[in-house]
Amino acid sequence: MAGDLILLAAVSLLSACQQIHFAWLVGKSRKQHKIMPPAVTGTPDFDRIFRAQQNCVEFYPIFLAALWIAGWFFSQELAALLGLAYMYSRHKYFHGYAESVQGRISGFYWSVVVLLALMVLCAAGITHSFLDEYLDFNIIKKLHKLL
Amino acid sequence: MAGDLILLAAVSLLSACQQIHFAWLVGKSRKQHKIMPPAVTGTPDFDRIFRAQQNCVEFYPIFLAALWIAGWFFSQELAALLGLAYMYSRHKYFHGYAESVQGRISGFYWSVVVLLALMVLCAAGITHSFLDEYLDFNIIKKLHKLL
Amino acid sequence: MAGDLILLAAVSLLSACQQIHFAWLVGKSRKQHKIMPPAVTGTPDFDRIFRAQQNCVEFYPIFLAALWIAGWFFSQELAALLGLAYMYSRHKYFHGYAESVQGRISGFYWSVVVLLALMVLCAAGITHSFLDEYLDFNIIKKLHKLL
Repeated sequence: MAGDLILLAAVSLLSACQQIHFAWLVGKSRKQHKIMPPAVTGTPDFDRIFRAQQNCVEFYPIFLAALWIAGWFFSQELAALLGLAYMYSRHKYFHGYAESVQGRISGFYWSVVVLLALMVLCAAGITHSFLDEYLDFNIIKKLHKLL
Repeated sequence: MAGDLILLAAVSLLSACQQIHFAWLVGKSRKQHKIMPPAVTGTPDFDRIFRAQQNCVEFYPIFLAALWIAGWFFSQELAALLGLAYMYSRHKYFHGYAESVQGRISGFYWSVVVLLALMVLCAAGITHSFLDEYLDFNIIKKLHKLL
Repeated sequence: MAGDLILLAAVSLLSACQQIHFAWLVGKSRKQHKIMPPAVTGTPDFDRIFRAQQNCVEFYPIFLAALWIAGWFFSQELAALLGLAYMYSRHKYFHGYAESVQGRISGFYWSVVVLLALMVLCAAGITHSFLDEYLDFNIIKKLHKLL
């Protein structure tokens, strides 16, 4: 059982490290700009870094759900690969946003593209399992017979 | 295995789409009211929509955890049904809040009721599994013997 | 299957209750200080409580992911114990922060220590499963042979 999920677990752990890293960068920027909690605004530099992290936080549970469902119902390897691509695009997004407001755009764009790709795998995997489980219709077997 | 969780996966995927839809509506409202990131306040209209989305984000991991535990330990079908009810109440909440501060109340109220119902199923399922696993006491078998 | 995860499910449910409790305390503080939504600032007292809850929200999906992976790939009992310790440190953090800005520090520090401990268990468990699954190298068996 564990073997079927090991790559998903590894990517989840790496992405958790990334999330903690982003939170740590916010704390570092807080000290640098002397913005005491609970304030969450102060200088434009801090505001951008804080907002970048908040956006990553917002999408993180969606990403985890899509990663595991795509990996479970479609393909663990493909889901894990897309998970790494998502992490990379979030890295680009965070550091781009830290530089400038404009800098967030390409990273964000790619993170959404990768997330949607994961969700398409989820939908395909769920549909296949549903047909097989409830209607006893196995697409892969049908295709094998046809070819 | 996958068959036992397919409805939970389907509801999770749908709710992930809903979360992305809410985030997209925030972005749309941003453009409409010309509120440049990283600002998260500006006009009352935008503030309400942003706050509505943030509240949905806050509760999303709690919802996912409750959905899967209730589905795994109690009943997949019932959990999935409550999951759809939760999504509907969040839809009501978001669009009610977008209209007016008062408009958020009924949707929020129902989302909490449904979430608590899911958590009661979790507690019941966990208690049952715990008694069965650790104390070898199976409630359902005992009831069968009594009746 | 369910038996292998029952403690993780129980800790997840408890932590979900804690998250809802924190959100409820924010609502209570809102009423007390008459801060109408969608505002999220007003008095220093409310600002601290709101920020405390937001920080707990940010770390919650990371915590859940670490809890389940550590429990699945390393040891359910140890992960569940650390999960309870995390909840306790978050309780300290929240109520410390509600008192004063300084009061948040020790609880936050411990919550990070416990979370990192969970993530070390994840890394150990994943590495062990990876060696066993893909390289057919079982550390525990090797150690048994050596001793």
